[in-house]
Amino acid sequence: MSFLIDGTQYSNWSGTIFRQMRDGGLDAVHVTLNYHETFRETVAVIARWNRWFETYPDLIFQGFTAADLDTARRTRRTAIFFGAQNPSCIEDDIGLVEVLHRLGLRFMQLTYNNQSLLASGCYEAEDTGLTRMGREVVAEMNRVGMVVDMSHSGERSTLEAIEHSARPIAITHANPAAWHPARRNKSDRVIAALAETGGMLGLSLYPHHLKGGGACAIDEFCAMAARTAERFGSACLGIGSDLCQDQPDSVVEWMRMGRWTKAMDYGEGSAAAPGFPPMPDWFRDNRDFPGLRAGLARAGFDAAECDGILGGNWARFFAAGFGAAPAAQGPERRSA
Amino acid sequence: MSFLIDGTQYSNWSGTIFRQMRDGGLDAVHVTLNYHETFRETVAVIARWNRWFETYPDLIFQGFTAADLDTARRTRRTAIFFGAQNPSCIEDDIGLVEVLHRLGLRFMQLTYNNQSLLASGCYEAEDTGLTRMGREVVAEMNRVGMVVDMSHSGERSTLEAIEHSARPIAITHANPAAWHPARRNKSDRVIAALAETGGMLGLSLYPHHLKGGGACAIDEFCAMAARTAERFGSACLGIGSDLCQDQPDSVVEWMRMGRWTKAMDYGEGSAAAPGFPPMPDWFRDNRDFPGLRAGLARAGFDAAECDGILGGNWARFFAAGFGAAPAAQGPERRSA
Repeated sequence: MSFLIDGTQYSNWSGTIFRQMRDGGLDAVHVTLNYHETFRETVAVIARWNRWFETYPDLIFQGFTAADLDTARRTRRTAIFFGAQNPSCIEDDIGLVEVLHRLGLRFMQLTYNNQSLLASGCYEAEDTGLTRMGREVVAEMNRVGMVVDMSHSGERSTLEAIEHSARPIAITHANPAAWHPARRNKSDRVIAALAETGGMLGLSLYPHHLKGGGACAIDEFCAMAARTAERFGSACLGIGSDLCQDQPDSVVEWMRMGRWTKAMDYGEGSAAAPGFPPMPDWFRDNRDFPGLRAGLARAGFDAAECDGILGGNWARFFAAGFGAAPAAQGPERRSA
Repeated sequence: MSFLIDGTQYSNWSGTIFRQMRDGGLDAVHVTLNYHETFRETVAVIARWNRWFETYPDLIFQGFTAADLDTARRTRRTAIFFGAQNPSCIEDDIGLVEVLHRLGLRFMQLTYNNQSLLASGCYEAEDTGLTRMGREVVAEMNRVGMVVDMSHSGERSTLEAIEHSARPIAITHANPAAWHPARRNKSDRVIAALAETGGMLGLSLYPHHLKGGGACAIDEFCAMAARTAERFGSACLGIGSDLCQDQPDSVVEWMRMGRWTKAMDYGEGSAAAPGFPPMPDWFRDNRDFPGLRAGLARAGFDAAECDGILGGNWARFFAAGFGAAPAAQGPERRSA
């Protein structure tokens, strides 16, 4: 069996959740460090993770390279790879890209719903595409081996990131808008450009991204995956569950409002349903991850395709994405 | 020939200086990142170093482990190891020890002349010894593999650091006070405790630490080294030149005064000679480093002892000091 990898989670981390990762057989999870946090605040989150790594060395460890997937499998632990949902963590300083890469940051979204210094979010009325700094930061991310993630970005910004980036990019957690036209889901044009350039789409299990919300059936989700694979191939598909387990609703408010507004913003929610939506009953936590295989098989995927979607495709993408670009390597310069 | 290693420099870095490191055959230099800089300011210095590593990949690269000494020799480059002269870079947050270790910090002084959160500097009237936080931070430095450096600390604090640290510590740049009773030089009691515990004394070439200042002759310096070796053995001795090449005098003011006083403080200088003192004419820059060998030989050291003092002893100490403590290693946890 290939690797099991979840392309996005932001839970209220605990020993319970780390044990569930092991019970689910997860070899790796890409975890979110920050939404609107500054560099210093993001470093504080890294320090908190270091405490978890020290406290639960038999369950988790920090992943830096694709080779850590083999270590995870061999030592029966889950490799935790860091990601940022927003470039707030690099502030206005391109030098922080390499610093955060050294600390293990392997994914960074260029925007989170709003305009950033780098590009436009999917909730802005105007989409600037990549800004001047955005183009410089994408090149720097390409150089050091940090994956551009456009999950929360606008259409034009996403297409320009795909075009401008010298290395494949990712949309770590979103679904096709053709299936469910949520603002966060992606157009066929974006998915086609992503797939053509070796990028990855992490299919999301967050209710607002699902047709029918949390009531969406596993077979409906997997049929959507099958239709997406028919059109764009299955090699670009992974899972990015967007699991936000055990989080209080204050966290979804921070995600949506950060410090950029004093007014209430419901984002994908509403005044009637302002909090985290309940997850589908077939994906409540990491223990349900292996159960996705049966659904994918029922939707027509063969064993190799199931392996790819549940982690093999992410593993290949990690191997291609996390090292320094060949041109950036000096004589024997280390890649991690 | 063994490695050539300088245990402390803080120059106004440039391509010229990096080329002089190569001309001098330096395999490694421990460079100072910060005096009074905060965490964020120290990270900005690291980002500046990343630019130098990118600009001069044929001359320098960042060192993380003792194995990088072999890489340096094989690729004819100088490995740059980071150090802090003051714990201002960890602010009041013990979590920043591991974060900075990940970024490559391999030495940290617990104090710089003044009282810090961790211990007392050599200019304080009262020496508290290690504070509560000081004991915790020493244990954390021991755990991750960051060397405790007491170059600018008070006598009691230094003795307590030697005693409390589970791993050997360093005084990266100072001389015996018995030879030249400068406030920054160290008592025989400190040097004896250091040597007994496997620690290192980097003999300083900074004029205020030399008998006769910049006029001190190389043979006088090397005779001091020989007397120190007779008493404490040569295995604890290295060079920590404290070279501050091409620095404007505003930098020595920052070293002495930081942001802790508005009044002029001359430190080891005086109103008559407030700036950087001129270096001895036999050690103006890195190209003079190999010339120390002849002086040490004239003072009676054999070839193996010369090898040790010029870098072999630091190499052994790096190998013992820079990895995670065995107890801190989980299953296959990486040490860098």
